[in-house]
Parts: sequence; C-alpha cells; structure tokens
Amino acid sequence: MSLDPARAAVRGAVRRSLADLSGTVLVACSGGADSLALLAATVFESRDQPVTVVGVVVDHALQDDSAALTQRVVAQMVALGADETASIRVTVDPGPAGVEAGARQARYAALAQLAQHFGAELVLLGHTLDDQAETVLLGLARGSGGRSLMGMRRSFREDDEDPRSTLFLRPLLDLTRAQTEAACRADGIEWWTDPHNSDPRFTRARVRHTVLPVLERELGPGVAQALARTADLLREDVTSLDERAEHLYREVLVGDGLETSALDGLDPATKHRVIRIACLDAGAISSELTREHVLAVAEIVHRARDGRQIQLPGHVTAYRDGAVLRFRRTGPAEA
Amino acid sequence: MSLDPARAAVRGAVRRSLADLSGTVLVACSGGADSLALLAATVFESRDQPVTVVGVVVDHALQDDSAALTQRVVAQMVALGADETASIRVTVDPGPAGVEAGARQARYAALAQLAQHFGAELVLLGHTLDDQAETVLLGLARGSGGRSLMGMRRSFREDDEDPRSTLFLRPLLDLTRAQTEAACRADGIEWWTDPHNSDPRFTRARVRHTVLPVLERELGPGVAQALARTADLLREDVTSLDERAEHLYREVLVGDGLETSALDGLDPATKHRVIRIACLDAGAISSELTREHVLAVAEIVHRARDGRQIQLPGHVTAYRDGAVLRFRRTGPAEA
Repeated sequence: MSLDPARAAVRGAVRRSLADLSGTVLVACSGGADSLALLAATVFESRDQPVTVVGVVVDHALQDDSAALTQRVVAQMVALGADETASIRVTVDPGPAGVEAGARQARYAALAQLAQHFGAELVLLGHTLDDQAETVLLGLARGSGGRSLMGMRRSFREDDEDPRSTLFLRPLLDLTRAQTEAACRADGIEWWTDPHNSDPRFTRARVRHTVLPVLERELGPGVAQALARTADLLREDVTSLDERAEHLYREVLVGDGLETSALDGLDPATKHRVIRIACLDAGAISSELTREHVLAVAEIVHRARDGRQIQLPGHVTAYRDGAVLRFRRTGPAEA
Repeated sequence: MSLDPARAAVRGAVRRSLADLSGTVLVACSGGADSLALLAATVFESRDQPVTVVGVVVDHALQDDSAALTQRVVAQMVALGADETASIRVTVDPGPAGVEAGARQARYAALAQLAQHFGAELVLLGHTLDDQAETVLLGLARGSGGRSLMGMRRSFREDDEDPRSTLFLRPLLDLTRAQTEAACRADGIEWWTDPHNSDPRFTRARVRHTVLPVLERELGPGVAQALARTADLLREDVTSLDERAEHLYREVLVGDGLETSALDGLDPATKHRVIRIACLDAGAISSELTREHVLAVAEIVHRARDGRQIQLPGHVTAYRDGAVLRFRRTGPAEA
C-alpha cells in the first residue's frame, strides 16, 4: 500500500480522536469527500480496537433525487467497511433563520437520535479547515466580535448542560478539503459534490467560491489557515471571558439587583458581559439585545442620571435605584 | 447655513472629543477628505472654547510632487481657519516591515514631535470607520486571533507607559469616508486623493478597492460597520485578557520559574497568555513565537514528559524542572 500523505494525514487525525476508545462510533456521511475520507480512515484506524463503526447518512429531502443519493451513500459506506449503516430522513423547517439553519438543526437532532439508537458515545463530523474558514467569514457580517468569529468547536455535547449526552467531534478541522479529496483519490473513493455548495443563492457557497478566493488572491495565500487559527484563539478567549462573567454576575447580585459600584469596577469586557447576562436574566430578548443597549445600561451604571431608564427588547426596562441596577418587566401596552 | 447631515455628524463627533478641553489641539492633515473635514469641524467646534487649533501636515517625501502637495495642504489649512499651521518633512525607512509601516512610524514620531513643539496635549487623527474595517481585514491574514482583528484604538498615548505623553485621538472612527466627503462638499472643500490609495501594489489599496466591495456584495451591506464593531469588541476582550494574564504571571512566578500546577489550573486563554509572557520574558523573539510554540510549552506544563525540551525562537529553551517550568538561554552555537 502506498504511503499517500493526504491519506496519512486524515488517518493520523482520526487516530488521535479515537485514542483508547472502545464501543460504538457514528460517522456522519454526506457522500462528500470530507466525510467519506473520514469514514475510510475511521474504519482503518479502529481495525485493532474494540470499536464498532456505524456510517450514518441524513436525508434532508431537499432535492428530488435525495432518496437515491442516500441509497448510494449507504452502499458506499458498506463498501468502505462500516460495521453497520443507517439512514434517516428528516423534515427541514426553514423557519425565520433560513433553510441552511433549518437543515443544520434537523441534522444534529437526527444524529443525536441515531447515536442514542446505536448506543454510541461519539459522533464524528467531517468538517475541514476550509469549512471553518468559511464559517468565520460568514460571522464577519454579524459583527458581534469574537463570538461571531470563533467558528465551529472541535468537540461539543448535544446537550451542553449534560456531560453524559452524545459527544460530537470534528477530527478533520486542521486538514484542508483538498487533503480529504486527495485521500479519497488515494483510496479510489468517488465522492458526490452537493450542487447546493456551488449555488450562489446560498451565502456559504458564495463565500466558498468568491469571497475566500478573493481574500487568498489579495491578502496572500494561507488566509484559510489564518482564519481557522483565529477561530481557535477566539474560542478560547470568548470561553474564558464568558465563564468569568458568569461567575462575577453572581458576585455582584444583591437581591434582585446588581451592585453598581462593584460592576463599574470591572474591566469593560467583563462589565459589558455581566450587564448582558443581567439583561437576559431579566427577560430581554437575546437576538435583539445589541451592544448599544448594553453600553446604554453601562452608562447609567457608571453615572446616576436623574431617573434615566433604558428600554430593552422584550419589554424590559433597566433603571438605577440608588446604588443598585434593577430591571422591570413592563407589559407591551406600557412599553 | 444649511444643516448638512454629514457635516453635522462630523462636528458632533469632534464636539464629543473636545468636551471641556482648553489649550492646543493638533489636527493631522493629509489633504484627504477625512482630515480636512476633521480640521474644519475642529475649527468650528472650538470657536467658543479657549482652544488653539494647529493644522499640521507630514510630508513623507515618497512622491515627486510631495513638497508642492504639502504647500497646498498648508494653504488649505490656513483657509479653513486653523490658528497656526506647520509642515514637517520626514525620511521613511522602509525596513523589513515595508514602506507603509515605515511611513506610519515616521508619521507618528513627527506628530509627537510637533505636539511637543506646540505644547499640545491632543493630536486628532482623521481615521474613519472604513479605515478601521480595512485594518481589520488586513489583520485577517495574520491569523493571530483577537489581537490581529482589533483594529485601531480610539485613543492612545505616544508612550503607552507615560500618562503625561501626547494623547492621540480618532474622533471619526464611527463615521464613514463617504460622510467626510459629503461634509467637505457641504463646506466647499476640495480634497486630494492619494494615488497610493488606489495603487494595487499596496495591500491596503487592494483591500479598499477589491476585498471590501466583494464582501459587501456577497455577505450583504453593512460589512464595514460589522468589522468596526467587531474591532471595538475584540479590543475590549484582548485588553481584559492581557491585563489579567500580566497579573497572574506575577502570581505563578516562583523565583526564576513558573509553578506548573498553578499555571495548569488556569483556563486556556489565560494559561496560553501567561506562557507567552514567560517565553518573551525569557528572551524569545515576539514576532517569531507562534501559537504552536506556546501550545508545546503548555503540554509540558500539563504533563511532565521525560526531559522533553521546547526550543523557542531567540535561542531560548523551555523545560520542566520537577513542578517548575524554567527557561534557559543557549548560545547560537548550542541551539
């Protein structure tokens, strides 16, 4: 067997993810190069481990031929040596966040359901460094600081609160899409190219085919790597600051208000996060609570201004009561 | 006088910067719309304040006609009502960081010198929201997380360590370039367009004329605003984390080493920053110290591995001595 460097890189990444694992591992396959390379490597790396590899495919039923495509992916997963395979058909609710968000939500719910069915503790996802870079660029337009640029996590639990819930892992986040394609070629795997990925109606497709190439050309090669590295760094930063703010929030609470002097003594990043948590706890709507709202509340924390009140989305009013910052819920009629 | 909204916006921004100020203010003018609008607004807003407005122009001597251009800007500054004007010619050392970085360094040094000469406490700079967005995009390619994306500060001192040194302020950072151009038109000011700004040999010019328009088109309008807002948020975050790490660094120091157990108990963002500070303190070269170096040191902090040593740029070696992380300088010959 030839020592193809791309295949070796994919296998190495999977090996590190499977270290000392026993039991059942789900590999989510779309039929694309990323996930097929991931499945092939998982089958190879688990050959001497007491691991059952289950290839699963989610049919989003968004394209006419999706059932046939799903069948083909199942057949490929069998041919690649998966111990078991499964497919699941989901109904995508486009909702207000759009069809991409709806598909994502349905997909993860279905994968968690399959994990439970197979008694799997681990679900592997085939996202690559290119996916990560695209996710960061999609976040640029949101403009919510580190939070919008921190990309996808390397691992996460289906239920963040419950450490026993299914663990999702992205072993290929340091590898490029080109590496997964080369690994497929080395193994003679034919992959499917989702036409959605080049459909300019989808923002992600435009980021992949227009934005990222322009950045690579104008800012120099290595932009995708730089974006992925930045995402790693920002995820660390945001996690640290969020956890610290959660902790300090409980410290500045006095009854149902916040001690303004303690709050005002915090550095801005922490203070603004604590104020945001307090606003949300009081019932403000997360998706509509802007930085401007938070800064306005910070201003009355800093300086008592004769009875000034800040209206927050969700019919919540922030106001100062002596040395305490308080919140009041108001009926829609009053607001 | 008509109430032009752009002019009103520029004046409002300057008014907030000059609040309660007396003494001398320098306004740095390039002859572009941003800085001429800034000067006009500063003259207008300081009319009832005991403020002397000095218009200054730095001649970088990078273009053949730079002396004539400088003369023209001086004449414009006089016409706009500056109380005094000055020009200064600098020599740009392109150095390893390039001509843009060399020009910037020479410019700020000259401005600080002029501020001292005029006894000014404040130097106003005309950077706009568009400049900020471009700076953030230029940082994307660096991939150093929040640090590379936090853009320009709203205010800074020439000497960060000395609170008495000249204060630089950027009052127009929330306004667009288009607003400053509209303000100029409203005042009948003719501005100069630096050919460097559209010379594709300069990365910033490519960002301005190619990258940002592509992002606005593909990700939706408002990208510049989103980038500027993200810069504000990241500056807060990075400042908070850096200050905390500086503080904790001194706490985990034991003699000339670092207590590994205390270090390993920190959250990753803080731990990696403390390790970075320690590496730099030990003599590692900042510009060559990568995240990979820091992560390698973090690994020996986390787990003692039989005598493993980490080579850092600048002929510094990190190693574990029992429960202590130490650094050793090695001669180039040994390294």
